[in-house]
Amino acid sequence: MKKYEALNPKFKEYTEFKISKNKFMHNLGFEITKIEPGYIEGDLKFKEMHEQQNGWLHGGVTSTILDMAQGFAAYSMVEDGKQVFTVEAKVSYFNPGIASQFFTRGYVIKPGKRFHFCEAEVYYLKEDGSEVTVAKGSSTMAVV
Amino acid sequence: MKKYEALNPKFKEYTEFKISKNKFMHNLGFEITKIEPGYIEGDLKFKEMHEQQNGWLHGGVTSTILDMAQGFAAYSMVEDGKQVFTVEAKVSYFNPGIASQFFTRGYVIKPGKRFHFCEAEVYYLKEDGSEVTVAKGSSTMAVV
Amino acid sequence: MKKYEALNPKFKEYTEFKISKNKFMHNLGFEITKIEPGYIEGDLKFKEMHEQQNGWLHGGVTSTILDMAQGFAAYSMVEDGKQVFTVEAKVSYFNPGIASQFFTRGYVIKPGKRFHFCEAEVYYLKEDGSEVTVAKGSSTMAVV
Amino acid sequence: MKKYEALNPKFKEYTEFKISKNKFMHNLGFEITKIEPGYIEGDLKFKEMHEQQNGWLHGGVTSTILDMAQGFAAYSMVEDGKQVFTVEAKVSYFNPGIASQFFTRGYVIKPGKRFHFCEAEVYYLKEDGSEVTVAKGSSTMAVV
Repeated sequence: MKKYEALNPKFKEYTEFKISKNKFMHNLGFEITKIEPGYIEGDLKFKEMHEQQNGWLHGGVTSTILDMAQGFAAYSMVEDGKQVFTVEAKVSYFNPGIASQFFTRGYVIKPGKRFHFCEAEVYYLKEDGSEVTVAKGSSTMAVV
Repeated sequence: MKKYEALNPKFKEYTEFKISKNKFMHNLGFEITKIEPGYIEGDLKFKEMHEQQNGWLHGGVTSTILDMAQGFAAYSMVEDGKQVFTVEAKVSYFNPGIASQFFTRGYVIKPGKRFHFCEAEVYYLKEDGSEVTVAKGSSTMAVV
Repeated sequence: MKKYEALNPKFKEYTEFKISKNKFMHNLGFEITKIEPGYIEGDLKFKEMHEQQNGWLHGGVTSTILDMAQGFAAYSMVEDGKQVFTVEAKVSYFNPGIASQFFTRGYVIKPGKRFHFCEAEVYYLKEDGSEVTVAKGSSTMAVV
Repeated sequence: MKKYEALNPKFKEYTEFKISKNKFMHNLGFEITKIEPGYIEGDLKFKEMHEQQNGWLHGGVTSTILDMAQGFAAYSMVEDGKQVFTVEAKVSYFNPGIASQFFTRGYVIKPGKRFHFCEAEVYYLKEDGSEVTVAKGSSTMAVV
């Protein structure tokens, strides 16, 4: 993961403020656990409300988590007062989401003035501690 | 929109059965209102729980609706007992989702044995009845 | 296809000028046959140099044609002197490209100040005149 | 980059055979320089025929190189006699391609029975040896 300098010295407070206002995220139970310039970590305890038709993690929950990990990674890399909007996002689904807890990391892969390109993964941990990637996201985030 | 023949004479019951088991969809309040071979319509009444940080429709809700419209459009085009999984999905965000009710249409654009390519839109209606597209989705749905 | 007003009264000359300078396009033998505001048509006579390993149209040729149809559709919708750059593009491959001539249409699906969202198809014609879609593209074009 | 075991003991010869038959690739002047299970390297000397309207590397050349790096990475991971087809591919353009030589690496990020998910980058080298990424690709490759 590349290390970046934040443009906003209060990037953490600013990103946390944006997170605090995100009601859908709180409804899901998704929590951000780490904020660094251009880098986000979060996790989600699996609940019955997250199930698709087979009882596994719903692709919509997965894409929401990826969107937030990427969007807030972008927020941590903008000047104070600037906003971030998702222009487009792609999600590739690698493995079914069958676990009691899911994790995500989102990161800016190419920062820019007009937009930040971001990527993110949702994964769970096997008993031996190794990661199983549920889905990988790639997105364009506009800085406005 | 292309017209297709369903491979499953009970495509409607089969798709409805899959829909009935989708808990995340019911949690959101998203409802499917029309099922034809390769074509789905649905709607969502906007609620506070759907808000992102500006009070607009969260991109994760949008991408979830697009995923379901496309996934169930694909389900309506498979043989009885077959399952559908999202391989990958892209969403382009055209306009902010600021409305009290949202609509979607999802459709198979290229059916196949191994996968169905699908597209979908989420939109709302202006007072004059014209549509404002919030987002457009394109996806690959595996038939297993 | 939506009808748009061009922002540049000389949109046709401006787009043709950009096309004239595109050497890779001329190397391929791809020709633009129609330019309207936000809409492009073109065609390509299949040659041996376009072949992938099975002797069919190479996916790279397909994605190049889609990129140009979308990029020049965007060029026809910008103010004089503005430039267009591809931010990102997705291509879905529906059918193998086995034909002596290929056609494309590219169009702006959502114009904007900062970027135009575009789509395009590459297709060939069956003997009965019906279209077989080889690939569908969707892209974000930045206006700079 | 993950290390994989090849399913085909002659994966190198098999991939080289497929490469040898790819005429569009040879027309471009793109050369594969390394083949490992699930991993490909290649390079391209920039020529006038590769130019877009500003004299830079054409996005179609970029997407072609990414497609081949990903497709042949997938070919190196299939059983003897199996074929690989691009289902869909996305390309994000990070920086203009202004250099005399370009490099690519393509890799399988999630192998599978039905399809391999792949990623690839096109980059050039600055005088200090550091990489500038021109574009990043992500794709779904069907194994047939």
